[in-house]
This record gives sequence, structure tokens and C-alpha cells, in this order.
Amino acid sequence: MKISARNVLEGKIIAIKKGATTAHVSLDVNGTTVMAAITNEAVDELKLEVGMKAAAVVKSSDVMIAVDE
Amino acid sequence: MKISARNVLEGKIIAIKKGATTAHVSLDVNGTTVMAAITNEAVDELKLEVGMKAAAVVKSSDVMIAVDE
Amino acid sequence: MKISARNVLEGKIIAIKKGATTAHVSLDVNGTTVMAAITNEAVDELKLEVGMKAAAVVKSSDVMIAVDE
Amino acid sequence: MKISARNVLEGKIIAIKKGATTAHVSLDVNGTTVMAAITNEAVDELKLEVGMKAAAVVKSSDVMIAVDE
Amino acid sequence: MKISARNVLEGKIIAIKKGATTAHVSLDVNGTTVMAAITNEAVDELKLEVGMKAAAVVKSSDVMIAVDE
Amino acid sequence: MKISARNVLEGKIIAIKKGATTAHVSLDVNGTTVMAAITNEAVDELKLEVGMKAAAVVKSSDVMIAVDE
Repeated sequence: MKISARNVLEGKIIAIKKGATTAHVSLDVNGTTVMAAITNEAVDELKLEVGMKAAAVVKSSDVMIAVDE
Repeated sequence: MKISARNVLEGKIIAIKKGATTAHVSLDVNGTTVMAAITNEAVDELKLEVGMKAAAVVKSSDVMIAVDE
Repeated sequence: MKISARNVLEGKIIAIKKGATTAHVSLDVNGTTVMAAITNEAVDELKLEVGMKAAAVVKSSDVMIAVDE
Repeated sequence: MKISARNVLEGKIIAIKKGATTAHVSLDVNGTTVMAAITNEAVDELKLEVGMKAAAVVKSSDVMIAVDE
Repeated sequence: MKISARNVLEGKIIAIKKGATTAHVSLDVNGTTVMAAITNEAVDELKLEVGMKAAAVVKSSDVMIAVDE
Repeated sequence: MKISARNVLEGKIIAIKKGATTAHVSLDVNGTTVMAAITNEAVDELKLEVGMKAAAVVKSSDVMIAVDE
């Protein structure tokens, strides 16, 4: 599958915290931590585990820009 | 201002392409390109220019996880 | 690639309208039209064309529920 | 109320799973399952129940396109 | 139609700027300006015009919180 | 930090409800309640408390427009 989302940041899973319905999955991407809030179902279906290679995928329209004042 | 968004990826602006209402701003973040689709107004108000330091800000609920099949 | 997004609706591209930076791509999914607003770059990179099979992908946290009053 | 969101997919609720704050509501839309992650409060206020008719509403800017490689 | 989105901010349209595919619609909500980026098609279908009453609708998962440092 | 998001609605926190991973934070903005679904981590890091001044921040592409039928 190829996807239209412009941002695919490759990294490694460093933490998974499942909640009641929503899980937080943290990746190390070149030394920066990226956190995703996804469904518990997705964690199970993709068999996500700490140490696995994975990518953070973000649609451009969900990215904001910030600058120092 | 401090924001609740968990992902603040610091980088440098490498390209700005304004459309009729929507602009595409690309950052280099540790060698990876991150693209943001924001309003032309925001580009003007923040005085964004190629070469400036800037950060890509993404809410965790807008991050997906992908793995190789 | 397998993605955490829970909604992958398979269909066929019935219209593509490129703007200055943002394109609208419409799919027929079992007789229902689904519209995506994506970047022109994504349209080019994925070589999207009317008549192609494609899927609309949506993260669960971007889906709302509506009921009749 | 009429809304600007381009995608209103009519179906029937087939599952509701409430978490601590976030609920997952699944609809059957013409044989395809569509999952929404919404607040528990919304489930209560809209009195959502399995078997009810409901629609999945998605803004076009939250829809991505995927194609087979 | 009743929708699960928790935030429905009632106001009046004060500006509409159509781009090639994306339009910016600004509302006055109790003296604060709220801007929406929606499709040109939605502007046409809802017959939006400056001076009309309208509401800005936002899903809770798309709202961030910021505090002064 | 200055951010590209066009909507920064200043108000006061009136309720915080933490779930297992996701928290709901409600602000009073000029008499209107605005609800945000953010991570528990963000609530802790920003030291959010009922009674604090805070702003709801929303990207324009996450705002829809609704009108009465």
C-alpha cells in the first residue's frame, strides 16, 4: 500500500501504553520522540511491540508550524 | 505559549509554496523532510521564509503508525 | 505497509480536481461518493487517475457520528 | 443542521465500546465497517445504541488515498 | 441532524475567500474571529454568504490547550 | 512560541476529566464551553488545573461550518 500522506517518519517503538480504548505509542525517530494516539485494536492488529521498527504517518494538513517569538 | 500537542519537531524551513489559499511549508528535521499544509495568512503572519528555524507541531491523535507487511 | 487507521474503504477514483496546492479526489465506494482533500504532490506521486482502484483511509479519531433529530 | 463536511456515510450502529473517556462506535455502511472514536459524552447525548441508524461524518481534509504498490 | 462533535460555536459569517479548491470562511463568535478551511463545494452547497448566521463545528480531539509560559 | 493555527480562543479551565490515557479539558470561552480531548501527559506537563487561564487552539482545516436547514 502507498498512501497520500506526505509524512512517513521511520523509527523504532520505545513505549506502548494501552488505555481503556486509546493507546499511546511512542517512536524514536532519529533521536526525537514522536507519540501517536491510536486505538487498542490497531496495536493488537499490527502486533506492535517495543523494539519493532515502525513509522509515524501524518497527513500534511495535520501539521502546524511554530516559530520562536 | 506552551501547547498540549506532544510532537514538536525542530528543524529549518527548506521550501514554501503558496497556493490560492493553502500553502505548503517543508522543513528539514534531522535530515527528514516534514511537510505542513497551512493557510497563506499564517505564512504571512509568522513571516516564514526559507532558511528560518521552525518546528513542525502535531497533535498525537493525528499520528498513525505503519509497519512493513 | 500496514497502517493503524481503522477505516480503509475500497473504491474507484471517479474525479480528480487539482487546485493550486490542494487536490480533491473523489472515490466511488459501493455507490457512495467519498471525497478526499490531499496535496497535488500526492496525486502526482501516486499517479492517481480517474478509473483507478484506490482506497479512502480515515483514522477513527477523525470520524464523527450524526443522527436524525 | 447542514454541515460543510463532504462525507456523510449512512449506516447502522453495530457496536459501541465505552472506555474511560473515549468510546468506539462501529457502523455498518453498505457491508463495510466504519469505526469512530468519539467522547463518551457524545454517546450519551445522542443516545446511541446498537441497531440505530446513524451516519459517519468525515471532513474531506481528514481523508487520505491509498493505492496498491 | 445532531452530531457527536462537542464544539458548536454559533456566530455570523464575516468573510469568505475562495481559493482554487479550498475556501476560508471566517465567523464572528461573540467578538472572536474563528476561521474554517473548507471546500469550495461546501461553500456553494450551503449557500454561505457574508452576514449569514452559521456555526463553527470542531471535534474535541482536534482541540489543543495552550497556556502562557 | 507563535503557531500557525488560526484559532486561539482564550478562556478559563472549568473542568478536567482524566481517563486511562485521554483527558477531557473544558474551557469557558466568553460564556461558551469548548472541550478538548488531549493526552493525560499534556495535562500533567502543562500543570492544568480548574480555574487557570488557558486557550483552545484549533487549526482552520479542523473547523467545519454548519447552518440551519
